[in-house]
Amino acid sequence: MTSTLTDTIRATVERYVALVATGTAQELADLYTADAVVEDPVGTEPKVRHAAIRDFYEVLQAAQRETKLLTARIAGKQAAFHFELTTTFGEQKVVLAPIDVMEFDDDGRVTSMKAYWGQDDLKLT
Amino acid sequence: MTSTLTDTIRATVERYVALVATGTAQELADLYTADAVVEDPVGTEPKVRHAAIRDFYEVLQAAQRETKLLTARIAGKQAAFHFELTTTFGEQKVVLAPIDVMEFDDDGRVTSMKAYWGQDDLKLT
Repeated sequence: MTSTLTDTIRATVERYVALVATGTAQELADLYTADAVVEDPVGTEPKVRHAAIRDFYEVLQAAQRETKLLTARIAGKQAAFHFELTTTFGEQKVVLAPIDVMEFDDDGRVTSMKAYWGQDDLKLT
Repeated sequence: MTSTLTDTIRATVERYVALVATGTAQELADLYTADAVVEDPVGTEPKVRHAAIRDFYEVLQAAQRETKLLTARIAGKQAAFHFELTTTFGEQKVVLAPIDVMEFDDDGRVTSMKAYWGQDDLKLT
């Protein structure tokens, strides 16, 4: 484990959270390896490989979004982070602050993502 | 997934964080199944089965500790949570706020724990 990889992982987490607000589905999918797995939320059917992951993020693109990284912890080639996503639908805002866990390859690309949240964590404001 | 299991998982997370401050190694080990696996921090050799897990928590018992649960997210039979552990050694306080991920069996006992933190996350105060 070089500090360079830790720095790369931290930068990727920051970029991910920024792209959830402002990026395209393609830009989000490009953070992942070709055979990556996304389980969001944990307990649902995983999305496997680039096309399925891109489709998953397509849904976001229709909505007005803001995000904020609250905290990130990096250990080995994995990261756990807590962030807040606010989605605006007309007059209604929905706030979700999941904890995500990502695994990375040696180049700092994401091989898996798991998002921890439940229906009770969706807040309407 | 019944809400009962979600409630049991949440109560176990709260009890775990409380016991990290005030419990014995045996009480902490008793939250786990017999063949559970603890990786703390992620990237280090996992502690497997009760005896190894109890030994792992023995180290805590020598120190004066305080804990605070900051946030918890429950999804399926897993939980991710962020908590703060303050350990006092004489005049020196060490604060560590990891993100932990636990998996549970159908009875709400912990089958695995992974703690996400790095050396950079240890704060001396």
